[in-house]
Amino acid sequence: MSARAGIVVTGTEVLSGIISDRNGPWLSERLREIGVDAAFITIAGDRPQDLDAALRFFAEEGVDLIVTSGGLGPTADDLTAEVVGRFQGREMALDEALFGRIADILKPLLARWPDLDPEAVLRSNRKQAVIPVGATILEPVGTAPGLVVPPASEGPTVVVLPGPPRELQPMWETARGTAAFTAAVQGATTFDWRIMRLFGLPESEIAETLLVAEREGLSLEPLEITTCLRRGEIEIATRFEPADAPAYDALAAFVRARHGQLLFSEDGSTIDEQVAALLTGSSASPARTIATAESCTGGLLAGRLTDRAGSSAYVLGGLVVYANAAKVALAGVAPELIERVGAVSPEVAEALADGAADRLGADVGVGVTGIAGPGGGTPEKPVGLVYVSVALADGGERITRRLNLSGNRADVRDRTTTVALHLIRRLLLGLPDAPDVPGILGTRTRT
Amino acid sequence: MSARAGIVVTGTEVLSGIISDRNGPWLSERLREIGVDAAFITIAGDRPQDLDAALRFFAEEGVDLIVTSGGLGPTADDLTAEVVGRFQGREMALDEALFGRIADILKPLLARWPDLDPEAVLRSNRKQAVIPVGATILEPVGTAPGLVVPPASEGPTVVVLPGPPRELQPMWETARGTAAFTAAVQGATTFDWRIMRLFGLPESEIAETLLVAEREGLSLEPLEITTCLRRGEIEIATRFEPADAPAYDALAAFVRARHGQLLFSEDGSTIDEQVAALLTGSSASPARTIATAESCTGGLLAGRLTDRAGSSAYVLGGLVVYANAAKVALAGVAPELIERVGAVSPEVAEALADGAADRLGADVGVGVTGIAGPGGGTPEKPVGLVYVSVALADGGERITRRLNLSGNRADVRDRTTTVALHLIRRLLLGLPDAPDVPGILGTRTRT
Repeated sequence: MSARAGIVVTGTEVLSGIISDRNGPWLSERLREIGVDAAFITIAGDRPQDLDAALRFFAEEGVDLIVTSGGLGPTADDLTAEVVGRFQGREMALDEALFGRIADILKPLLARWPDLDPEAVLRSNRKQAVIPVGATILEPVGTAPGLVVPPASEGPTVVVLPGPPRELQPMWETARGTAAFTAAVQGATTFDWRIMRLFGLPESEIAETLLVAEREGLSLEPLEITTCLRRGEIEIATRFEPADAPAYDALAAFVRARHGQLLFSEDGSTIDEQVAALLTGSSASPARTIATAESCTGGLLAGRLTDRAGSSAYVLGGLVVYANAAKVALAGVAPELIERVGAVSPEVAEALADGAADRLGADVGVGVTGIAGPGGGTPEKPVGLVYVSVALADGGERITRRLNLSGNRADVRDRTTTVALHLIRRLLLGLPDAPDVPGILGTRTRT
Repeated sequence: MSARAGIVVTGTEVLSGIISDRNGPWLSERLREIGVDAAFITIAGDRPQDLDAALRFFAEEGVDLIVTSGGLGPTADDLTAEVVGRFQGREMALDEALFGRIADILKPLLARWPDLDPEAVLRSNRKQAVIPVGATILEPVGTAPGLVVPPASEGPTVVVLPGPPRELQPMWETARGTAAFTAAVQGATTFDWRIMRLFGLPESEIAETLLVAEREGLSLEPLEITTCLRRGEIEIATRFEPADAPAYDALAAFVRARHGQLLFSEDGSTIDEQVAALLTGSSASPARTIATAESCTGGLLAGRLTDRAGSSAYVLGGLVVYANAAKVALAGVAPELIERVGAVSPEVAEALADGAADRLGADVGVGVTGIAGPGGGTPEKPVGLVYVSVALADGGERITRRLNLSGNRADVRDRTTTVALHLIRRLLLGLPDAPDVPGILGTRTRT
């Protein structure tokens, strides 16, 4: 049986929607990987009674573990350690050695802001060394220590982590290794956790696939399957006990047989990672350089390609050709062509791909042109109509697709970058003839 | 006194971290605008007993209003309406007229996926028309109706909204207008809500400013002030009762006097909006076109400038010059210059700004070059070193800044786009001489 956990994220800014929480989902994914189900994620403000109410709620719901994020700073409204200590029935006491280690961390930071009063800073950071007696200390990544606080008598163990993701994430790894943590989740089953990703079909098709799989006698009960649509791709996440690996293997084989090329990832890799690996090259395929010419995505595709460290090995650069004059001047699109077929056309997408590869001397060129909206649509060329063309500079191989995307301006722009990455992958793998799926991968265009 | 609310977001995908929740923070902001404080946001899975537990928890904490998001779809695990109906002590019944309206909505959707069985679809959507007796119906935006469900006897009113933000957001507006909603939050004070934004100082400075303001006799008690750092800018959000407007005005005047030019927004406008307005032009200042040449941001600045509908009026395009050869070939940077001072240098940033303006025939050019990391840093040019230059094509006016940004690759790239927007604003307003603040706005560079 899985252990259950509750996650409390504290912070008035998070609760009031001013900043969005990344810790709750991140912790939930990490818990799931070790066989612990998050039952609830609760965001509470900085009021101590609200944090206390959330802890009591989780305890009443019978969770085995509670993880808190935030409220460990030096200021007066940072009260998590104290509230958790009281909730667990433990005294608070200053840990002198910890205080000394915090002071050592602060020295170089104080040097950076010479106007601050070092004594005042140390006074407020002294608070961070006052911890529940009997808690396990997680050494600071920033200046705040984390804690693993077992109950004085019975109830869930509470893992107390700082709010900044950069501090919380490494500290989570430390917490997992402590004896107090292991004791709290012992008996939790260890699960395997696999992800398949598909592109080019509607989510309802996957629901249908699972129905058909059961009808054909596959054993899906031991598998905990979650499907979701993420950035235009379908993700099938499955958790199972190691003994049920054959059931998962049968499901994976079924999905592979039924969806063929649309299943692009069985090892959890993302399309961004796959395109990066293909462009980097391997013993099986040559390294390639890439260049983009974007109209409606306005640089987002180049931005996404360069998100990854090391992308300078294959991204030479790109052209953002928002104005028609820029399409002509930068990408060398013939003005007569734009005049004749319009800027949003398969011909111009292809000319952009070729122009990008040519101007930057790249092996692969990508051209994007379309109508992101909300204005600018016509009955013939509505908002959401986008043409993407990817071309190899050498062999003349190319794929050009017409997309009819729904959603708002940001959706259309983001979804276009996803399609472009999939087309780059298909081109580099020599899979240009994907099936036509209107509205998702778009329609092949032959000019 | 403010009314208090609880928000429950349901969905196993959200709880498990597979997709991130946008509804909780959005609803929290909307509630706050009408004087209702979100006390908790709880994310629960699709298990009905967990949703019920969250509703009970909120009721025990004494909230006046509960808003739920998700679980209104046609499938078996969509149980929100039923759980809420039971929680409020109300019978469930089919609303025939509503069922008819849902069927009308489905007709064109069914035409799009010809393989689906229309009868089966209608059967599962019939479920969406089974609602608690006495609830107010919120007409579907997609296919799912929302509900306002008052308690049969006493306790909070529950507003039931669908999960997709595109459906939830317009339906929230409808919900607000219903008599049942108004009755639930009556007595809630109406608050005024103002935002000031500053750029170019550390967050601790604002804490200090508030301390000094109190010391100098300003009355801050009637003001509920939240400060936070968002994308490199400081936001001071203040809520107050209308009668306390003079206290807010005094605070705003104090901040203005103390921080001068660093206070860039007092009307809630963002830097993106301000730059768009400046480029669009007004009776006070001419319209201007803009072009970018980006190295380390790889298109993200152009992407951000084109995020806004209507940006084609002033964004001509941009160059993504990741490779040095691209800096030379596309932006016309002299290879000897790169050889002499290196690609990451104020001189190359300026050459990129000039090259962008020149190649695209724009009034304003922006050049960005830097080391986003994690690799590529040296002791002299560490990760986070970025130069941004903005220049007017006509007058030769320019601002060039050296930044030392902290954080990971994504932080450095994103923060750079924020700085670039602020430099564009300063250039267009004729405010080139901002004070130097190391590590935030960066250091002026004179070449």
